[in-house]
Parts: sequence; structure tokens; C-alpha cells
Amino acid sequence: MSDNVVELNPPLRTLMGPGPSDIHPRVLEALAKPTVGHLDPYYLQVMDDMQGLLRKLFRTKNEMTMAISATGSAGMETCVVNLIEPGDSMLVCINGVFGMRMADVAERAGADVTRVEKPWGEVFSPDDLKSALGSVKPKVVGIVMAETSTGASQSIAAISDLVHDAGSMLLVDAVTSLGGMPVEVDDWNIDAIYSGTQKCLSCPPGLSPVSLSPRAVETVLARKTKVQSWYLDTSMLASYWGTDRVYHHTAPINMTYGLYEALRLIFEEGLDSCFARHQTNHAALREGLAALGIEYAVSAEHRLPMLNAVRVPAGVDDAAIRRALLERFGIEIGGGLGAFAGKVWRIGLMGHTSCQNNVLILLSALEQLLGEAGIPFDPGSSVAAANGIFANG
Amino acid sequence: MSDNVVELNPPLRTLMGPGPSDIHPRVLEALAKPTVGHLDPYYLQVMDDMQGLLRKLFRTKNEMTMAISATGSAGMETCVVNLIEPGDSMLVCINGVFGMRMADVAERAGADVTRVEKPWGEVFSPDDLKSALGSVKPKVVGIVMAETSTGASQSIAAISDLVHDAGSMLLVDAVTSLGGMPVEVDDWNIDAIYSGTQKCLSCPPGLSPVSLSPRAVETVLARKTKVQSWYLDTSMLASYWGTDRVYHHTAPINMTYGLYEALRLIFEEGLDSCFARHQTNHAALREGLAALGIEYAVSAEHRLPMLNAVRVPAGVDDAAIRRALLERFGIEIGGGLGAFAGKVWRIGLMGHTSCQNNVLILLSALEQLLGEAGIPFDPGSSVAAANGIFANG
Repeated sequence: MSDNVVELNPPLRTLMGPGPSDIHPRVLEALAKPTVGHLDPYYLQVMDDMQGLLRKLFRTKNEMTMAISATGSAGMETCVVNLIEPGDSMLVCINGVFGMRMADVAERAGADVTRVEKPWGEVFSPDDLKSALGSVKPKVVGIVMAETSTGASQSIAAISDLVHDAGSMLLVDAVTSLGGMPVEVDDWNIDAIYSGTQKCLSCPPGLSPVSLSPRAVETVLARKTKVQSWYLDTSMLASYWGTDRVYHHTAPINMTYGLYEALRLIFEEGLDSCFARHQTNHAALREGLAALGIEYAVSAEHRLPMLNAVRVPAGVDDAAIRRALLERFGIEIGGGLGAFAGKVWRIGLMGHTSCQNNVLILLSALEQLLGEAGIPFDPGSSVAAANGIFANG
Repeated sequence: MSDNVVELNPPLRTLMGPGPSDIHPRVLEALAKPTVGHLDPYYLQVMDDMQGLLRKLFRTKNEMTMAISATGSAGMETCVVNLIEPGDSMLVCINGVFGMRMADVAERAGADVTRVEKPWGEVFSPDDLKSALGSVKPKVVGIVMAETSTGASQSIAAISDLVHDAGSMLLVDAVTSLGGMPVEVDDWNIDAIYSGTQKCLSCPPGLSPVSLSPRAVETVLARKTKVQSWYLDTSMLASYWGTDRVYHHTAPINMTYGLYEALRLIFEEGLDSCFARHQTNHAALREGLAALGIEYAVSAEHRLPMLNAVRVPAGVDDAAIRRALLERFGIEIGGGLGAFAGKVWRIGLMGHTSCQNNVLILLSALEQLLGEAGIPFDPGSSVAAANGIFANG
């Protein structure tokens, strides 16, 4: 045995970055349950039940609702490569890293991509899309509901009619929003949507919940060309997730156990209670950060509750503070991506991470570290401000 | 909470099918270790160490050796879509389901595919490939080392020089072979190879070990077009697995723990001991099955030790026996795929499943069930035959 093959002994972290979030002990236990075969009657029952839970979570009746056997970015790729054939037009709304990624994925699928861009931290109004929709008449419009790189919350309801009036299908990135705020697939008439497990579902990364509307399914079935990805071809995946149970690939059994248990926890709490909890903890964090003079990268009306992107205070060493949070407090927060690198901290309050104690310990830790860095604020004020919210919550 | 959201309670199975195999308790425990961030210094160290273990397992110095964040079929797709650009020629050797799958994946990647076919259960000699290699001069030759649908063992060493003499790169499917028999990536001059975790590595499904030779990496870097899959683009994945640690997608942290622990177990036993164990248990099963009059679907010289594809005895109801094995003994074996459906059983002796006790209990169970079905054999003879091997082993 070589020297480097040491026993696993991961440190205990409080995961307040952009994901993964903290995992409930019941989910970790579920991952370790005995593995059965991917065609075992027991596993097929778990798949069925999990599909039911995913439909409740997405608030949809979509038959084709399932978990892709890879992480959230593969969910994005699944939606794009199934709906797009070479030469199809796709309009992608870009106001951060994940819109950029979607445009890249779409071009790799052969789409004729039209980019509509807004500054990072802003969101799209119907007026922002009208002209491009009218001139391009895209087959698919892709948009990110919760832009994890900026913390901006995009209204899907506000743009859905416009997209459909143009004859387009609506593809939504719900990686960071699902489980932390309402995602109404049927009410908002979403045609394709994907998410990840490691954000507000508080399951380790590894699966991607996806749902396709009947119209999207018809589009896939009517394709002239094969889906370019064999692994992500939903027409074949449907035969495994459906009643035929045709073998496609070997499903990730134990990850499925984990997601199943994570969904059970959400519905034990109740979806609306879960959303309210995310809002309360966000409000407490926001008031606490305000007391420290820390500003959000997004205006008040478009802030996500689960991903708080805030500006690194002037004179503060971004990486040094994050390192100190990790090393001295075991707290992970995220740095900025792309245009926000070095300028923004991304503080996650996702799923099981979103709790009173985490808000209070992060504010306490920031008070200690920013105090050492000579940032002026009234000592204790951030914790007091957060407690003011919790006391009224 | 809806009625169907019951607590997880998987039955205890003995997994003797084509995968997943039985999981060692230490691997299940590893899956449940505390989740850390995908850029946490601790996780980056685990990735580094795991890369080292994968290189030892593949017996390669290939820098680009890593685990793809999806199951083995995505490993196949990774190798194909990175090496192939639209219009490139690829020769695929087909003697079972997984060669067929590779041809499908290659066509979806835009390859001009030449199929060389052999009957199911047979393997390819250099003579089988010479004429197609000479006329096509393919960029890539794809071949399955251990065809999981037939149990046939393909010599890679025998064909490697021929492939390279034609100027082609050699792409090998080692999903079922890796960890159960020698896979010599450098000695055999393999350019691209992929595997899965749920076969001889005895880790739940969810990751795909992949290794690319320097020549393959150069080919990827010299592409004129982007890799069609963003998720599987190894030029971007290399920046995360390499020293730059550029964020690509959120890695499946806990699955990585599981694979890391599974690899530790293999190297604690020793790779050669592990291969020898697979051979011994295969020999014992083979002798036991012979005593029951059960024949292999593959001739003696080309049988895989870890995947025993045998003909369902005449007069026996394939599905009924498999169901009885599952329900009365908790044993899963696999049915036939494609041309072998209803005609073949696939008995896996992979990884942790490959042990004396499993061979003996399966033979005992088959004696009971085949006896009930009126198949003539000498009672106790299969167990005695297996014990004969174990006694000399």
C-alpha cells in the first residue's frame, strides 16, 4: 500500500457556499444503505416513489420527471441536447456564469444561439426579451431562475406568456432555486427544467432532477436526428423510468437513496414551511450583514433567499477571510466567479444549511475577522440585528 | 406526507449479476462520511490520492486519469466524444451489446463508423481486423475488453500493434474487466480507456474511471471543433483535476469517498491477489456448473472470470429461476440481453462478490431450484466440484 492511501477522515464543515450545502445525517445514512440491483423490484419501487416526490417538488404532473445520473450541469445538457437539433434557434438569457454555460452547451449541440445579455446581478423583464423573441422566433428560450454566480432571482412567471406567444419553449435552470423557493412548473408553463441535488435539496452532488412537459416530450419524439448524447437521451431514459423498465445504464443506486431521503425530509417539513424558513434566515443574514456595512450585489427586490452574493468590503482580502473562515471556524463560503472574482462573496443558506444557528455563527465569525481587519462596525450589532429578525419570525 | 413516502429499507441481496456487485461495508461507510466542498483543500487531496490509485489500477503513467462524474456509459461517451470530430472515421468491434452501444455513441458524435462484427460470445483476432483497418485507416478503433453481455474476454495485447500500425488510436471498454483481471494501459499502448465503479471495484454505480494517453490528450487539444458535450469535455475537466483547480461542475463528493475506499481495499489485498481470487472463484463456479450440466456461452479459452454467461438449461424457465433465486435466497443473477435474452444467465463474480461462500451458496441454491424443475444431476455434485477447486486453491 503506498504512503498516500490514508484513511478517509473528512473535516466537519459548515457548508455556507454555493453548494454543496450541509447534509442531514439521515441523508448520509441513506447513502450507506445496502446496495440492490438497478432492476431489483425494490429499487424500481424507490424510483417510482421518488418520481412522485419530484413531481410534488416541481409542482407538475409531467410524466417525464426523473433524476439524471449526473450532476446539475448534466441536467442542463440533457434539456438542451434533447430539445435542440442542429440548426435550431435558441435564445439564451445571460446575466451570469450559468447563462453563459447554457449558451456554450447550446452551441455545442448545434443550436443557432442568440444571446440576450444583462449586467451581472440584474434580471430580465419582458421588455428585455420582446425584440429578440420577435425577430428570432427561437425554438427554445433558456433562462436561469436563480443565477448562482450573482444571487439574482429571475421571475419566470413574468416572461412565460411572452415566450410561448412567440411559439417558443421555455427551458429553466432551477439548480439553486428548487426546494428553497416556489418553482411552479405547471403554473408557469415551463417546458423543460433541471436542478441539482447539492443546493436546497441538501443531498450530496451526483444527480440532476429534470422534468419535461408533454410538449417537450413530443418534440423529442418528433426529432429528425438522434439526440447527440446517448447517455442523456430522454427517449431511452423514459423506457427505464417508465413501465417498460428497459435497461439503459446502471442507475446510481445509493445516490438515489440519498435523494429519496432528502425529499422525504423536505415533505416532512412541508414545502411552504421550507420556503418560509429560507426567507427568514435570509432576512436575518441580510440585516446582520447590513450592520457590518456589507452590501448585496443585487438590488433588494431581486435577491435570492438561498444565495447571498455580497460585495467584499473595501480594504478586505477576499481570499484571506475565506481561508480564515474555513480554517478557524470550519465555515465554507464561496468566492466570486468570472466578473465577480475577488469582488464578491457568495453565502449560501440552502436546504439544511439554512438555519438560525448558521446565520448567527457566520455573523459572529465575520465580526471577529472583519474586526481584526480593521473594518469599522458596532461590535455585536450584526448578531443583534439577526436576532431581531428571529425574535419576530 | 403522502402514503408512498415510506422509510428506506432495502432488502439484503447477494449481487451476483452483471453489476452492481456486493459493496464492502467500508465502502458504504465511506459514502456516509461528512460532505465537504468540491474545492475544499481536503477534497482536492482526496482527488489527488484517488488519481494516484487509479493510475496504479490502470497501470499507467497517464497524467489524464480521473473519474468522470457519471456511470460507465458516460465514460464510454467521454472517450468517444473527445477523440471524435464530425466526419472522423471510427472502427467499432461488435460482438455484443456494448460494442453496439459504442457504435451508436460514435455515430451520435458524427463519426463515420465502420462496424466489424463477430457472433456473440466470440472475440476478435488480428486477422478479423486487418482488412477493415487497411481499407478504412480509422482515427479510432473501439473495442470491448470484457463484453458484459456475453462473458467473452478480448485480448487487447493481441490487436494493439495492428491498430497502431494502421495509424489509429485504441479505445478500450474496461467496464467489467478493471480490478478483476490485468488491465495494462501502458504496456498495451491503450489511448483511451473507461470503466465503471459497480463491477470489480465494488463501489456503487455513479462514477467512471477514465484514462487518456498523451497522444489522446494531444488529439483533444488539437481539435478544430469543441467537444460536443460540455459536461464530458476533458480539456475543461483537466483544469479541475490538474493543478489549476478551475471550477467546472460540482464533483460528486461522497461518491468519490466511496470509490477512494474501494480502491484502498483493492490495494490492501494487492492487485495480483485480487486477480487470482477472481480466477479461483470462477474456476470453482465453472466446475460446479459443469456438474449441473450447465454450459458456458463462450468457449473455454475466452471466458471472463468475473462474468459467467451460461446457457439456461433446456426445459427451464429463465425468469422463474431468477425470481426464485431473488425471492427465496436473496441472490441476484442477470438475464440475457439482446440476442441472449431468455437464453443466457449472467452470473457475476465481481469484486467483493467474488468469494468462496457466494459460489457455494449459489450452487446450492441452483441445485435446489433445478432439482425442483426436474433437471437431472447428481445431488451435491456441484458443491463437491467447487470444493474440489477451493481445496486445491
